[in-house]
Amino acid sequence: MELSAILATIPLFNGLTDQQLADLALIVSDQNYKRGATIFAEGDRGVGFFILVSGQVKIYKMSVDGKEQTLHIFGPGEPFAEAAVFTGKSYPAYADALQDSRVFFIPRDSFVTLIRENPALAMNMLGALSMRLKKFAGMIEALSLKEVPGRLASHLLLLGGQQGDDEFALNIGKAQLASILGTIPETLSRIFKKLSEGGFIEVQGSRIRIVDREGLEALASGEEKL
Amino acid sequence: MELSAILATIPLFNGLTDQQLADLALIVSDQNYKRGATIFAEGDRGVGFFILVSGQVKIYKMSVDGKEQTLHIFGPGEPFAEAAVFTGKSYPAYADALQDSRVFFIPRDSFVTLIRENPALAMNMLGALSMRLKKFAGMIEALSLKEVPGRLASHLLLLGGQQGDDEFALNIGKAQLASILGTIPETLSRIFKKLSEGGFIEVQGSRIRIVDREGLEALASGEEKL
Repeated sequence: MELSAILATIPLFNGLTDQQLADLALIVSDQNYKRGATIFAEGDRGVGFFILVSGQVKIYKMSVDGKEQTLHIFGPGEPFAEAAVFTGKSYPAYADALQDSRVFFIPRDSFVTLIRENPALAMNMLGALSMRLKKFAGMIEALSLKEVPGRLASHLLLLGGQQGDDEFALNIGKAQLASILGTIPETLSRIFKKLSEGGFIEVQGSRIRIVDREGLEALASGEEKL
Repeated sequence: MELSAILATIPLFNGLTDQQLADLALIVSDQNYKRGATIFAEGDRGVGFFILVSGQVKIYKMSVDGKEQTLHIFGPGEPFAEAAVFTGKSYPAYADALQDSRVFFIPRDSFVTLIRENPALAMNMLGALSMRLKKFAGMIEALSLKEVPGRLASHLLLLGGQQGDDEFALNIGKAQLASILGTIPETLSRIFKKLSEGGFIEVQGSRIRIVDREGLEALASGEEKL
């Protein structure tokens, strides 16, 4: 298969036109790594990012006593190091080929030049990523609406108990609370809204008042669903 | 608050430098819509995208008999129409202000010019979106690893039953199967790998052989976890 035909199958490049894929193919370096070979090391200058075409790549950190901690194992079609390289950072971890692997290397400098000459390529990539992000946010919402209301109810009862009152202030930001409860801020806001519309709580800025303690307890125990 | 200080709080613009935020602020048009006002209509040319600063915006489609179907309700901090506008499409739906709303409008032409002059802005946005996407993918994996193995087991038993054999071909692509099961292809691949390492199935390309039917049934019923 031609380089640009392979690039067309990579979600990161969804929505690029044939011409844009062809332009991109011109700056790709097609590389092969033997099983066990190191692709980059933590702290190396982030000179470019990678698309795994075939094989398997392990991303890991090394602790001070030399122990490996695997962060992620990538399979075919997945980009790696792109987030760090886009933002101009050095490689944040090590990457080794776990199997004989074929990767496309895309040098940062050439990629920046390509975007300068052809901003529509960046626009299409931003569009594809935004669309994927919306889809993922919808899935997280669908998955977490089942469980997060119960977890939030437990958390609110805990806070109410700690502060010894039915009225208390949320002592952390919503982004942090969302992360603790395993969801995203957008979904958390929706659950707060449902809890207050359902008469469980009243929300005033960052202050919460528990209105229906029994109802919250039923949610927290899983007896009731929101 | 200054425009650029507000822009700095929007996840889409995470990681932009102060200078990039200031450049962006120069092309922002600060707009107010009364409750009930239409912001754009389906099919209008996608001349720019929006960030909701305060208020609430409803995105909806209109059926042939004039019934509204709400697709999404956006709250403060959320961008809307950006995916369509990045990819040069017309607005795919209607947007109305549900409450008095303040929005930042970012004209597409000015935004493209900005990226051409300053590709690092696009790079930083690509980096921020990639990072968010990775985080979301991790959350979907964490959320779906609990339930998707059981759903996949049911699906495989169903296919095995339909095709009357313990060996059969997956008749749809992995992306489509992932979507049916409520997860993403990356996570589905990992679950397939676990099922085959656990001796439940053997996978050869798109052919599946059920090795441990009882084990799959226990997974499908929720008696066993992967």
